[in-house]
Amino acid sequence: MINFVLLMTHSSSSLLNVKDLSFINDIESMAVIGPSKKRNFFFLRNHFATFKGSIYAVNPAIKEISDFPSENIYPSVKDIPGEVDFAFITVPKEKILEVIDDCVSKKVKLVSIFTAGFSDEGTEGGIELELELLKRANNEVRFLGPNGMGLFYPKKGIQWRGEFPTEPGNIGFVAQSGGICNIAIYTAKELGFHFSKVFSYGNGTDLDVVDLISFLDSDPETDIIICYVEGIKQGRGNELVRVIAKTKKPIVLLKGGKSETGSKAAKTHTASIAGDKRIWKSVFKQNNIMEVNSLEQLLHIAYLIDCYGIKKIENVAVFSISGGYGVVLVDLLEEAGLKMPDFSPEVQKKLDESLFLQGTSSRNPLDAAAQLFQGDSIKKIIDIALSDKKMDCLVMDLPSYYLDQRYFFNPTHNFEEIILETLHLGHKYNKLLIPIIQRTHTPEERRRVAKMLAASHVPIFGDPMEVIPLLPKISEYYIKKSQNT
Amino acid sequence: MINFVLLMTHSSSSLLNVKDLSFINDIESMAVIGPSKKRNFFFLRNHFATFKGSIYAVNPAIKEISDFPSENIYPSVKDIPGEVDFAFITVPKEKILEVIDDCVSKKVKLVSIFTAGFSDEGTEGGIELELELLKRANNEVRFLGPNGMGLFYPKKGIQWRGEFPTEPGNIGFVAQSGGICNIAIYTAKELGFHFSKVFSYGNGTDLDVVDLISFLDSDPETDIIICYVEGIKQGRGNELVRVIAKTKKPIVLLKGGKSETGSKAAKTHTASIAGDKRIWKSVFKQNNIMEVNSLEQLLHIAYLIDCYGIKKIENVAVFSISGGYGVVLVDLLEEAGLKMPDFSPEVQKKLDESLFLQGTSSRNPLDAAAQLFQGDSIKKIIDIALSDKKMDCLVMDLPSYYLDQRYFFNPTHNFEEIILETLHLGHKYNKLLIPIIQRTHTPEERRRVAKMLAASHVPIFGDPMEVIPLLPKISEYYIKKSQNT
Repeated sequence: MINFVLLMTHSSSSLLNVKDLSFINDIESMAVIGPSKKRNFFFLRNHFATFKGSIYAVNPAIKEISDFPSENIYPSVKDIPGEVDFAFITVPKEKILEVIDDCVSKKVKLVSIFTAGFSDEGTEGGIELELELLKRANNEVRFLGPNGMGLFYPKKGIQWRGEFPTEPGNIGFVAQSGGICNIAIYTAKELGFHFSKVFSYGNGTDLDVVDLISFLDSDPETDIIICYVEGIKQGRGNELVRVIAKTKKPIVLLKGGKSETGSKAAKTHTASIAGDKRIWKSVFKQNNIMEVNSLEQLLHIAYLIDCYGIKKIENVAVFSISGGYGVVLVDLLEEAGLKMPDFSPEVQKKLDESLFLQGTSSRNPLDAAAQLFQGDSIKKIIDIALSDKKMDCLVMDLPSYYLDQRYFFNPTHNFEEIILETLHLGHKYNKLLIPIIQRTHTPEERRRVAKMLAASHVPIFGDPMEVIPLLPKISEYYIKKSQNT
Repeated sequence: MINFVLLMTHSSSSLLNVKDLSFINDIESMAVIGPSKKRNFFFLRNHFATFKGSIYAVNPAIKEISDFPSENIYPSVKDIPGEVDFAFITVPKEKILEVIDDCVSKKVKLVSIFTAGFSDEGTEGGIELELELLKRANNEVRFLGPNGMGLFYPKKGIQWRGEFPTEPGNIGFVAQSGGICNIAIYTAKELGFHFSKVFSYGNGTDLDVVDLISFLDSDPETDIIICYVEGIKQGRGNELVRVIAKTKKPIVLLKGGKSETGSKAAKTHTASIAGDKRIWKSVFKQNNIMEVNSLEQLLHIAYLIDCYGIKKIENVAVFSISGGYGVVLVDLLEEAGLKMPDFSPEVQKKLDESLFLQGTSSRNPLDAAAQLFQGDSIKKIIDIALSDKKMDCLVMDLPSYYLDQRYFFNPTHNFEEIILETLHLGHKYNKLLIPIIQRTHTPEERRRVAKMLAASHVPIFGDPMEVIPLLPKISEYYIKKSQNT
């Protein structure tokens, strides 16, 4: 099982070995199998709160659950009169084979197996039980896991946890680790972007990253695919390369276990073979995958693409209100390979006329200094800068305390309104406008404004290093994609 | 003025050309010269709210200021009966020479000149006026600026803005840019570390980075020096190298204008010559300066050193509750040059006994999984891990939603208490314990806990990339310093 080699040859002649999952979009009924008093019926309650269809609880030892209709409690999934499209399984591992047999009988289409203690345990017994599970499922019921959280599907209200966002989006996320998925979902809720589906596939015994990327690529509800992958099981490497090669949608991937210690840790975590990082690198490069280095980068790039789409980002205008911060932004952008050219002569002329106060600079990087507070100067200046054909992007800084009237010489009643209008100008020009709103001691103000902006797909960042390294990744994807089409 | 070369030769025979500023610690009286109704007496009000001594307003056109004692308003600084140790000057530039003459007559020791429009304007007239200003001050009154915010000195209540933190600390900050200083001060307030003094020296006409580093090095209230420098005036490069070479305190430096465009921008911003970045690099290296790349890094390293001091950081233990996130942490740490060795056999034995639940891993990286919620397991495990002699540091992740009871299977009343006790364990072992508490959608919980931790010098971070790149910088400083002493 262990001697996996990711083959680089593409044998396009044979059919891809991926499973059909198109039925997922038609799930209308579900069961939670094994909800327990000990966990306060956690998984049942979370699904019951939001699932848009019939939902059943299955546990032979339970007759009553507070705030859940007792007529929807059954001893076995087989006893449920109607159809069951999906089941979330949280029984002890000793009961898993019986439950999967029942699901096969009941013709359940998809199950999530939360239960752990299979190959993830690293014991021979665990590995054997997992193989037996696969055999019993017999390609009749598809399953996510074991040792995973399964499926988050906001459109249908399928959610393993509470406080998950209910609004559907167009980003699909595939990860083995349930913890990673939880952090991703709660972070996306905060940033204000949304998932079509999130899959936590755990040990990947039946459905794995190959099946799930392939499904998301053909899923009409998904436009961008983001993944966290620790490794892949023996025999599936070649398939992964082939699926990635034929995927039409943008893929962003975080590879866990790239380092020596990290690769050992990945093996403990999900019994995955991390594989040679050079082979992965080369797969990413050949197939135009956007590779990132942390979960935060993965989520921030999704956020950025969700707001602005995928574009060439080569020439950047910088707008600063503190000259010093602008100088650092320029250094960081140039270090990342971006260019900050002069404005075109006609644009420069307009900027010269608009930035007239002492201490300002009308060249790139623009330094607004005190002119920030002169009526709607900031909006006019950024509008002119973005109108320059050669500029692909504008990066600006604004400390969050400027969003709080206490910090002004005199209260300026429409300053926030002007700032909000200004930050929407990226969409006017179909270019990226990236505000760095520093995390100073006015976080409530920052969050309030961020929520308003999220509603109209304007992102904000708090630290330039959260976003600057992502710009060349998006741009390179765009350029390669254009060359190949 | 422009053909500056940073000389690398140390001529230790000649005396350092630095100014004595020791009187700063004895400031007992101050004046704000030129407060105006137009700005709602902004700078006067801010100083008046906190200054611990006599404070006067100077403006010949003003007799009354609401909520300010009229008997403390004078037409000229010369009319003030008592001594004036310090003045904040905000008059129009046409009046600056007259005002500085008055300050010389009055024997004011230090002034901050906020007024701009000198060499920063880039005009011949501006440069001439600045030279005349220097001549009139005649080494009798020392000045910060023009075109700077001057001095923030919380112990004395000297503050140019409102809502500045009032608690003094032991970190001195030197920057030209006032905007950078504002962001730094408000960010430090949020993170919970404190400054001894902050200097925004603007054009650096009289006092510059050389004088200010030299002062902070001998200042008994300062233990760490952090700087943002865009460049240095002709003839002071050699002096800077010599001051840095003799400084006994740790220096962290952010150099603005390292890139080609950045260097041009720095020139516009403060008429500074950015200098060849290779020369700067070599000065940093030869003199054991911790160099950082962004304002956020500068502040985060100050925060980290404020909490844990300066130590060797070579071997790191990782503690994760989501195996996947732990795998990524390991990758990032190894990429940054840190080592994650196995625990010593006796420590490993104890960890094996303590991490027994399914899904956990007792090796480095530790994966606590569900055992996080088993009584005080987390505290015991981290205590054991930190007790390992070879480990210098422990990095752990915790999503902020675990600080909110809504996210639990069952309410766990003392979980937060256990977490707080756990996060203090770094101080028990005099080692760095670094929690990454992700910025998910429970920011209020995260902030509440962060404030409690700040009080006992336990830092928290939100993104591993905010802190991991800083660890080798601190460690390298420590190792070099140890070799030289």
